[in-house]
Amino acid sequence: MTAKATVFRDLHYRGEPLVLPNAWDFASGAMLAAEGFPAVGTTSLGVAAGAGLPDGTGVTRDETLVLATRLSRLAVPITVDIEGGFSEDPDEVAEFAWQLGELGIAGVNLEDGRADTALADPGHQSELIAAVKARVPELFVNARVDTHWLGVDPSSTLARVARYEKAGADGIFVPGLTDSEQIRTVVHATGLPLNVLYLSTGPSVAELAALGVRRISTGSLLYRASLATAVGTARAVRDGAAIPTGLPSYKDIQAYSPLR
Amino acid sequence: MTAKATVFRDLHYRGEPLVLPNAWDFASGAMLAAEGFPAVGTTSLGVAAGAGLPDGTGVTRDETLVLATRLSRLAVPITVDIEGGFSEDPDEVAEFAWQLGELGIAGVNLEDGRADTALADPGHQSELIAAVKARVPELFVNARVDTHWLGVDPSSTLARVARYEKAGADGIFVPGLTDSEQIRTVVHATGLPLNVLYLSTGPSVAELAALGVRRISTGSLLYRASLATAVGTARAVRDGAAIPTGLPSYKDIQAYSPLR
Repeated sequence: MTAKATVFRDLHYRGEPLVLPNAWDFASGAMLAAEGFPAVGTTSLGVAAGAGLPDGTGVTRDETLVLATRLSRLAVPITVDIEGGFSEDPDEVAEFAWQLGELGIAGVNLEDGRADTALADPGHQSELIAAVKARVPELFVNARVDTHWLGVDPSSTLARVARYEKAGADGIFVPGLTDSEQIRTVVHATGLPLNVLYLSTGPSVAELAALGVRRISTGSLLYRASLATAVGTARAVRDGAAIPTGLPSYKDIQAYSPLR
Repeated sequence: MTAKATVFRDLHYRGEPLVLPNAWDFASGAMLAAEGFPAVGTTSLGVAAGAGLPDGTGVTRDETLVLATRLSRLAVPITVDIEGGFSEDPDEVAEFAWQLGELGIAGVNLEDGRADTALADPGHQSELIAAVKARVPELFVNARVDTHWLGVDPSSTLARVARYEKAGADGIFVPGLTDSEQIRTVVHATGLPLNVLYLSTGPSVAELAALGVRRISTGSLLYRASLATAVGTARAVRDGAAIPTGLPSYKDIQAYSPLR
């Protein structure tokens, strides 16, 4: 197993949960690593919207690979959101995961949500997970259960968790899960580390840690906050209002790029 | 001349200067257009740092074309920063500009700064400008004079402005120019609209307008502010501090992508 894959796996079994920020390009990933985050994820919304494509509809395979290639140059482990795997063919999903593994990527998120708020059949989704694990055993497969995120068939959550665990998943991700009792129930239902999405209206990192959550990711939050800042700053310039201070300089940003 | 090219040219001759914000991806461009900015530029630092490449060294031709292709789908005119043209061969620079014109791009910034803080020979730079204008007459060529930006040979500024105007440039851009007297001098030295870079330590938009500046761009400011927000938001999540409110939602961002 590569050093990064080992480091990444171990980050799910420490005294405190892994707080995983999500980058949309090289510089955002580099700055998050420099801030001390021990691993960096990607945001599929950032990848899709950055390219002018819709998120969660399986159309950003190429763009995802480009971002993974760029982020793989960072010193920290990278985990990549591959939506539903960009194919329903287990071999093709495994092939893509293998490409990522060859780049040195440490993990992937593989979701059972599909376009138009549909959920994949859990048996089929288990085949995708198993195919990836068979082809790239060292890759940390975070099996995302989208019942709460999409608000579809939430009563099937625990059954899906059990099936994905049995298929070989290394972690379980249930975005949209914010209720303490429900979080505790999932934590106790699986032997795998549970990942939840940080939501400003939900529990804090400390509260999630106390509930037994092992990984807390930011999803599209950083990207959405960034866009809001871009527009707000442009508006401030135009309207003569105060603009943000203490920003990284041109040279600060340039210094992150490894090729000089 | 295409409608967008005409609209873009006219934006330099209104009662007020064109405030031009600079996008680094499709969503940032789409949101700036939605905010009411009548045209959008690109930031070469954003393009370069986003790809993990150094800015201003002529290595981001492909990435620049990808961004231009994405932004060309917006309803507003787009102007693209092409650094020094990504080649010293006038035909190759003209060919690249032609590709952008075919996409419906309305303008380009072409700079005489080169890697390692060197300035191109003004005669050679004039050849590049003339080649672009000969090949793509409708493209608004904003000739960037980097004497102040790089702090190299500032006494040659007016001579460079005159040569680039004579070569057929449609506008002059002198980033780093903040002194009111110097701005006024350049405005009076050329018949072309003058573009300066907005700097928080320099004159306001209203002050620049009064000095006769016709275009005020934000350069890398929005991108740098965005990165600062991303890291600050991630830090706030990790440390249990307050995170930004009033952000665009996931669905808000999704709605900008034209392919559904």
